[in-house]
Amino acid sequence: MARTELPVSIDLSHHINALSKSRHPSPLKDIIKYMAYDGMISFAGGLPHSSLFPFQTASIGVYPASTVLDPINPQAPEKLDIVNFSKAELDGQALSIATAMQYGSCAGDPSVIKWAADFTNIVFQPAYSDFEILLSGGNTDAWKKVVGLLSEQGDKILVEAHTYPSSQALWIPMGCEAVPVKVDSHGMRSDDMDAILTSWEANNPGVKKPHLLYIVPVGSNPTGSTMLAQRKKEIYDACVKHDVIICEDDPYFFLQYPEYDSGFAATPGSNASTPEEYLKSLAPSFLKYDFEGRVIRLDTFSKTLSPGNRLGYFVANPVFIERLLRATEVETQAPSGWSQLVVSNLLHNWGTNGYITWLANLRDQYRTRRDYMAIFSFVPPSAGMFIWARFYLTNSPRFLKIQDSGKSVDPEQEFLDYVWAELSKALVLLTPGSYYTPWQGKDKALTKTRGSEPGVGYFRLAFSMPTREEIYMGVNRMAKVLQDCWE
Amino acid sequence: MARTELPVSIDLSHHINALSKSRHPSPLKDIIKYMAYDGMISFAGGLPHSSLFPFQTASIGVYPASTVLDPINPQAPEKLDIVNFSKAELDGQALSIATAMQYGSCAGDPSVIKWAADFTNIVFQPAYSDFEILLSGGNTDAWKKVVGLLSEQGDKILVEAHTYPSSQALWIPMGCEAVPVKVDSHGMRSDDMDAILTSWEANNPGVKKPHLLYIVPVGSNPTGSTMLAQRKKEIYDACVKHDVIICEDDPYFFLQYPEYDSGFAATPGSNASTPEEYLKSLAPSFLKYDFEGRVIRLDTFSKTLSPGNRLGYFVANPVFIERLLRATEVETQAPSGWSQLVVSNLLHNWGTNGYITWLANLRDQYRTRRDYMAIFSFVPPSAGMFIWARFYLTNSPRFLKIQDSGKSVDPEQEFLDYVWAELSKALVLLTPGSYYTPWQGKDKALTKTRGSEPGVGYFRLAFSMPTREEIYMGVNRMAKVLQDCWE
Ligand SMILES: Cc1ncc(COP(=O)(O)O)c(C=O)c1O
Ligand SMILES: Cc1ncc(COP(=O)(O)O)c(C=O)c1O
Repeated sequence: MARTELPVSIDLSHHINALSKSRHPSPLKDIIKYMAYDGMISFAGGLPHSSLFPFQTASIGVYPASTVLDPINPQAPEKLDIVNFSKAELDGQALSIATAMQYGSCAGDPSVIKWAADFTNIVFQPAYSDFEILLSGGNTDAWKKVVGLLSEQGDKILVEAHTYPSSQALWIPMGCEAVPVKVDSHGMRSDDMDAILTSWEANNPGVKKPHLLYIVPVGSNPTGSTMLAQRKKEIYDACVKHDVIICEDDPYFFLQYPEYDSGFAATPGSNASTPEEYLKSLAPSFLKYDFEGRVIRLDTFSKTLSPGNRLGYFVANPVFIERLLRATEVETQAPSGWSQLVVSNLLHNWGTNGYITWLANLRDQYRTRRDYMAIFSFVPPSAGMFIWARFYLTNSPRFLKIQDSGKSVDPEQEFLDYVWAELSKALVLLTPGSYYTPWQGKDKALTKTRGSEPGVGYFRLAFSMPTREEIYMGVNRMAKVLQDCWE
Repeated sequence: MARTELPVSIDLSHHINALSKSRHPSPLKDIIKYMAYDGMISFAGGLPHSSLFPFQTASIGVYPASTVLDPINPQAPEKLDIVNFSKAELDGQALSIATAMQYGSCAGDPSVIKWAADFTNIVFQPAYSDFEILLSGGNTDAWKKVVGLLSEQGDKILVEAHTYPSSQALWIPMGCEAVPVKVDSHGMRSDDMDAILTSWEANNPGVKKPHLLYIVPVGSNPTGSTMLAQRKKEIYDACVKHDVIICEDDPYFFLQYPEYDSGFAATPGSNASTPEEYLKSLAPSFLKYDFEGRVIRLDTFSKTLSPGNRLGYFVANPVFIERLLRATEVETQAPSGWSQLVVSNLLHNWGTNGYITWLANLRDQYRTRRDYMAIFSFVPPSAGMFIWARFYLTNSPRFLKIQDSGKSVDPEQEFLDYVWAELSKALVLLTPGSYYTPWQGKDKALTKTRGSEPGVGYFRLAFSMPTREEIYMGVNRMAKVLQDCWE
């Protein structure tokens, strides 16, 4: 698509698993081209007739793209933009009801695909020319299809040292296991990944080498960390060296914050920047370094427009996209026509610059929430919705007692469970860090057997939902409980 | 749900496959109940904040439920019902935007679930009491999840002698194979199914006995046939005897037609019947006989409201529903919030009787289209959107020549391909019957090796899309080509 001075993707089809390889296109597809013949009468289709769909007109009232909300008391602006999309008269590109509500291309409507391709070129700038777009039902659906494309039973999958639990819950029943890679403040360490893969055969004789990296590189769930340009390039190079496919699950890309400055009370709109300046402030996607087409980027509208859309898209090389499309045909078909309709019309109504303005303001909203929470002790995250709080347990007499008793199979976990329960009793709810522990099999389920850092524990705090008052109150409750637990 | 005089479902968990058995609920689920505690401040959630969703109001203009369209020239009625669903003030049960667009229960919104449970009790009347509902993204998504629940690699699956190709395309790459069961004018033959299963061990020593039946019992795609009450009961009993789970994929249930009467020109509204009379005229679902909970019924709004909704629901026993929900959590999450929003509000606006009136009129519309096509020679279907045309090839000198030459590996197929190409050249497009042949493995891919009836072939004609004029013209074109091919 477009920039033809760039290289085309290399052949990576050896990564495709046996099941995906053996999918055939539906025989019905062959017929579709005949349907377009002039004068053809088709008795082949079998679609329901769109005159018999009860839906005729539709409109939504949406925030104008430039809306700046009050972060303390966010209230809908008085004047909404009304987007009518009965007939999609807008610019001839957006989607109409009759089309959206019929069976259509499983790849998604051309208006949405084209928008996503243009947006990808502007914002993510892939380093190869023949990337393609396929719509997904959000990143949950997309990750499921990536595992269905690449992973065999029992495969080892490279992940960050703390990783998104739902992504694992998908492949654990397949007998797959995580290979956690160390992280530092810049995210996953390329030297550790290189070391693991270089010594793989020596350390894991007879075990298939990992060929898939799952990563949440921006505003990582749970750690909130963001991988900057230099590190991404290093990771990418290591993946080229070891022939690894990168799945970039990136729902928080547009929520990248400036560094936390305790003297500066962030207020939305205060960083008012042009769309170009905002885009420039963002760490690049892995796509920017992807001259071979080995990145499968998962984008979702869940965090930027709302999760209920269940809409997102893959960016990947044409061979992977074709196989993902085959899976989409038999597993789900295209995402909801309503979702495509609303999102297509909204984006065409706002325009690309309008959408980027929306994203910049959204970023400022969540940044303000981050700042409320960051005035307390933890490392403020540079993106996303989460603070990852690290605790040194060996300062707690209570922990030491559990440990020294010799009765606990996992003293860290036992103590952290206790802390979590005490916090809940004090009416403040955190997510236990253990939820994000990479699954390495039953024999590595304890802090010790897993080789996790001893005497350390984590909780995840989300700042996306509570109000400022709740944040202040909740953190006070936390402080008291933690004081008690550490005496 | 409700009718407690009925038996509860029996334990069928031995049908669940290894992968599905080993799914664990997300650890995050444990936390959700704590969130509801009075005064709890939650930093655990990590949802985006709904004040930051740009969508505030929404409305659709829909046909009034009682709309009767002119089948020859269907045009939207002048007065549409406008359904506003910004806040779902309707009756407190339908869904509002803020809820629909947030992450929510993967089972689906309670307003939709409750509607589906009530509707199931009224219309399908399951013979056991503890059935449950889970929303799906339509029957494609639902069937994928049923195979993911029950089937192991290499399983044999019972199907009708002609079956829906996309349903096979899903499991062929898993190394599964079809076991086709004979059909007659009442649909699948229970005696043949019983015979196959009774003699299974003798005829297939060492091969795992099929334990899943996939069936489109009403308006079968492709054959258009419908299984009436008596046959359904026989099939159900055979499934009890042989411990088989029935997956009832039933998108055409509400399009069941009275017998074709060539002297009677059907016009929509002409059968005007009360909702009760209409429901009475329909052959029952397998659920009606399901006193054990061994039916997984797949319902979809694709044919009754429109495919773009990508919305449907499972009706099944609680153990299966729980496992299907686990898969939904990691594979897709809930269906599109927009789809749930629109369908929930529409159904609550129309009311159950309104919806049934809509279905009765819709049935009459498609019935009229069936009648246009049925004035020609084929067996008129009793439901759905398809005519299944059977041809005797041995009357064609051309076919006999191919056969007698001894040069063709599959004379039937070669001749039918030729007929199809000639039809296309004459600008009338049918679907080749071969697309619906059950896949029994590579060594049974030819008419002969498969043991299909020799000298017979099929085409599928859909009457749902063309106009009356197109039907008349198309059938004339067909007649000429067929005459030529049979000389
Ligand atoms: C890292 C990560 N991936 C995927 C998802 C789910 O995204 P979607 O709503 O697009 O399925 C989330 C949201 O909770 C997430 O944090
Ligand atoms: C038998 C059968 N099952 C399933 C489907 C697909 O239904 P849905 O749109 O609900 O995925 C169709 C429609 O083409 C069908 O004919």
